[in-house]
Amino acid sequence: MQQVSVGLVGLGTVGAGVARILTQHADRIARRAGSRIDCKWAVVRDLNKKDRRAEFEGVRIVDDVRRVIDDPEVAIVVELIGGIDAARRIVLDALAAGKHVVTANKALLAEHGPEVFAAARAADRAVAFEASAGGGVPIVGAINVGLAANQVQSLAAILNGTCNYILTQMTQEGIAYDAALAGAQALGYAEADPTLDVDGTDTAHKLAILAQLAFRANVKTADIPREGIDRLDLADLKYARELGYTIKLLAHAKLAGGALELRVAPSLVRNDAPLAQVHGPYNAVRVVGDAVGDTFFHGRGAGMMPTASAVVADLIDVATGRALLTSRVLDFWSAASPAVPLLPSSRSLRRNYLRFLIADRPGVIAAIAQILGARGISIASVIQHEPAEAVGDEPGPVPLVIMTHLAVEEDLREAIREIDGLDVVRAPSVRLGVEE
Amino acid sequence: MQQVSVGLVGLGTVGAGVARILTQHADRIARRAGSRIDCKWAVVRDLNKKDRRAEFEGVRIVDDVRRVIDDPEVAIVVELIGGIDAARRIVLDALAAGKHVVTANKALLAEHGPEVFAAARAADRAVAFEASAGGGVPIVGAINVGLAANQVQSLAAILNGTCNYILTQMTQEGIAYDAALAGAQALGYAEADPTLDVDGTDTAHKLAILAQLAFRANVKTADIPREGIDRLDLADLKYARELGYTIKLLAHAKLAGGALELRVAPSLVRNDAPLAQVHGPYNAVRVVGDAVGDTFFHGRGAGMMPTASAVVADLIDVATGRALLTSRVLDFWSAASPAVPLLPSSRSLRRNYLRFLIADRPGVIAAIAQILGARGISIASVIQHEPAEAVGDEPGPVPLVIMTHLAVEEDLREAIREIDGLDVVRAPSVRLGVEE
Ligand SMILES: NC(=O)c1ccc[n+]([C@@H]2O[C@H](COP(=O)([O-])OP(=O)(O)OC[C@H]3O[C@@H](n4cnc5c(N)ncnc54)[C@H](OP(=O)(O)O)[C@@H]3O)[C@@H](O)[C@H]2O)c1
Ligand SMILES: NC(=O)c1ccc[n+]([C@@H]2O[C@H](COP(=O)([O-])OP(=O)(O)OC[C@H]3O[C@@H](n4cnc5c(N)ncnc54)[C@H](OP(=O)(O)O)[C@@H]3O)[C@@H](O)[C@H]2O)c1
Repeated sequence: MQQVSVGLVGLGTVGAGVARILTQHADRIARRAGSRIDCKWAVVRDLNKKDRRAEFEGVRIVDDVRRVIDDPEVAIVVELIGGIDAARRIVLDALAAGKHVVTANKALLAEHGPEVFAAARAADRAVAFEASAGGGVPIVGAINVGLAANQVQSLAAILNGTCNYILTQMTQEGIAYDAALAGAQALGYAEADPTLDVDGTDTAHKLAILAQLAFRANVKTADIPREGIDRLDLADLKYARELGYTIKLLAHAKLAGGALELRVAPSLVRNDAPLAQVHGPYNAVRVVGDAVGDTFFHGRGAGMMPTASAVVADLIDVATGRALLTSRVLDFWSAASPAVPLLPSSRSLRRNYLRFLIADRPGVIAAIAQILGARGISIASVIQHEPAEAVGDEPGPVPLVIMTHLAVEEDLREAIREIDGLDVVRAPSVRLGVEE
Repeated sequence: MQQVSVGLVGLGTVGAGVARILTQHADRIARRAGSRIDCKWAVVRDLNKKDRRAEFEGVRIVDDVRRVIDDPEVAIVVELIGGIDAARRIVLDALAAGKHVVTANKALLAEHGPEVFAAARAADRAVAFEASAGGGVPIVGAINVGLAANQVQSLAAILNGTCNYILTQMTQEGIAYDAALAGAQALGYAEADPTLDVDGTDTAHKLAILAQLAFRANVKTADIPREGIDRLDLADLKYARELGYTIKLLAHAKLAGGALELRVAPSLVRNDAPLAQVHGPYNAVRVVGDAVGDTFFHGRGAGMMPTASAVVADLIDVATGRALLTSRVLDFWSAASPAVPLLPSSRSLRRNYLRFLIADRPGVIAAIAQILGARGISIASVIQHEPAEAVGDEPGPVPLVIMTHLAVEEDLREAIREIDGLDVVRAPSVRLGVEE
């Protein structure tokens, strides 16, 4: 049987998982790849950090990536260092040296997809990236291959396990955001600096990738309107639940009249929808195709072994030769592909959840309803709750929750601006979209 | 761009869907396949049945499959006639003539997988079969490619939309099996003769295929212990629900101590498990892999366009050249593959739901518990319900529902046999397994 030599660049969480599968299950992988995949090199930043030789016997661990790039025996470079600049250099150098590339780096692809795939085309090499969106969930292959007969109509996904874990804790245990985040950090589900997770950036990176695959949209992360979960109030999770909804951080993409609507935001999902049943650090993707209808994919979006599962699947795909055929045909991030225009977010149309904190006085609800109505926004349901504690003479402000019917985003924004300007409104309003 | 000519054999439900996608979305398919896929021929049984020329312009509709097999321009034959004997002949002839084959025929693969793939190997041609299990759900590709790094540990699946529709109606509407079946027939979800669906045979065909992919098990349908839904009593769905479970017709495969447990049977699934949330004519597959952990795939398992989605995905996979690489490496149904032994069903270990109809007399429960206990079967919970109507002097019999802890199948069977022999037991007992 032939042998394919691989250089792992990065031997952290994911890299170590990949090395483990390749060394511990070499025969199984060889049977499925049609050749023995030999983990010849592993590159780390700091050779002295810990002694990794015992765990990865037979793997040459070095701190100079050129050893791998310059080794003519290496056929595939696996980039698992994360970050953008160094990773970009390594991937481009590897392609220029005639290596295939496997990467789990969503930030790199979201920001430099066009450059990376132009280099891949120039070198006629594959870049495989199953782990970059959805982790262990084989969603990249599902869209590229399994659902290839379809025009995807819409896609809605939970792509960040950290956020989903935090939201699950908030929903099920009734604990506030900060406490839930601290718990996630204690369990290793969240980084010490969780900013890119909780502010929606990581989800937007992954959505940029899925939007390329499903719609050939060539978007940068900055093009995607995004909100994180870091300012979510427990009260809204509770009211949503009363209304029959669960709040999830969703990546949303939808074709609407020839334009593509993209968004990352905490959104209301009906309790009986599969996305609402996704708990803890899991990921899930709902894809609606014109032929297949509704499909749903669920699994672990991160973690050592689930992510390594996707990286090794890519290695097998490259080793068999399939990945190169896919890369050639699908022409990822190619400028030549027919571009789909983005729908300006002001034009998006959806149902909304609104929460106002209002003075407990007659006529306030009517005033709000009137402002909404004047912009053609009709109300589907209302919850008015007990007033909070009185402040001096005046009764405390009361929360007012309104679900709207379909509303155009710019109309809604204007209405909210006007409502927030009313002197009976006690705090800036909260607005969340509803995922259909 | 190159052109690939295809011969569709069968232009019924699925065939017409495939022809529709290929003709209406030719450009899209060409972009993803890297060549234009031309539906040159369609073969039907009866040319006079209806006039199909208007709908499928440009497709030569004939009733002689030799026209296709003998056409040197045809590169791919798509077998969509169903049944076994004629389909087998067509597939073998097509391979012998150097064509690749795409098929949705689970019965054929379950019964003649070894012969079909031996012929494919001899001819060095691909046989692609994404539609044969799970319909539109791309589960075949997920196991073969996306999860290829894993040893699958277990698999549990809803693979027959007709049965799932019927069970959903029984559960949600509280209607009995016969009425639910009639409803499914009226809606076109069930055939006039639904035997192969409701008795579990269709599910067993699909399980035989998935067991080959996930475990390289070379099993015939007859090797798989199976029960259908045709004798399910509404009462058991109701008691299961009280205990927090939903009853689903499951295909079950699990590695246990180096042996493979296979089974098709109505089974209890915990209400909060994703499989319990699969409603109506949908299919779903849960796959647990050693690296990836729990994954779940959900979508339409049948119907014209969802099934055509999978068939056209296969056509694209063949046209790009990927399918042949997969076929070569994975060596489906090859005698050379290391065989996994089947666990005799008497040795299987699981929790069980038992329902007895007993005389309403003191001591009966104790007698039953004693028989179970004597075989090491311990009881997890009991529901005893109100007696049915009195019969003459004697109070009516009462249903007794018992959930057991893990029990070895042969111990359980013996215990049930003994319990059914008690003179206080009024009807043969009901037994259903619990899916963990
Ligand atoms: N962790 C997950 O669950 C997960 C899931 C999906 C995708 N990903 C993606 O996978 C990639 C890797 O993530 P990770 O969690 O495995 O990261 P990590 O644990 O931080 O590991 C990074 C590894 O790269 C090495 N490294 C960093 N900079 C380097 C450089 N300039 N040259 C050579 N080696 C360098 C580090 O060396 P030292 O060990 O010497 O520090 C370390 O071994 C990222 O793109 C991430 O977004 C991760
Ligand atoms: N229907 C689904 O939802 C579904 C889902 C998954 C898989 N499948 C599988 O897909 C396959 C096709 O199913 P289907 O529902 O499309 O069947 P169907 O509606 O009964 O259509 C069968 C077609 O094959 C033609 N045919 C039958 N015997 C033939 C023969 N000996 N030579 C030439 N043509 C012949 C028929 O011709 P006439 O039109 O002249 O009668 C008809 O066009 C089956 O293997 C089935 O198990 C179906």
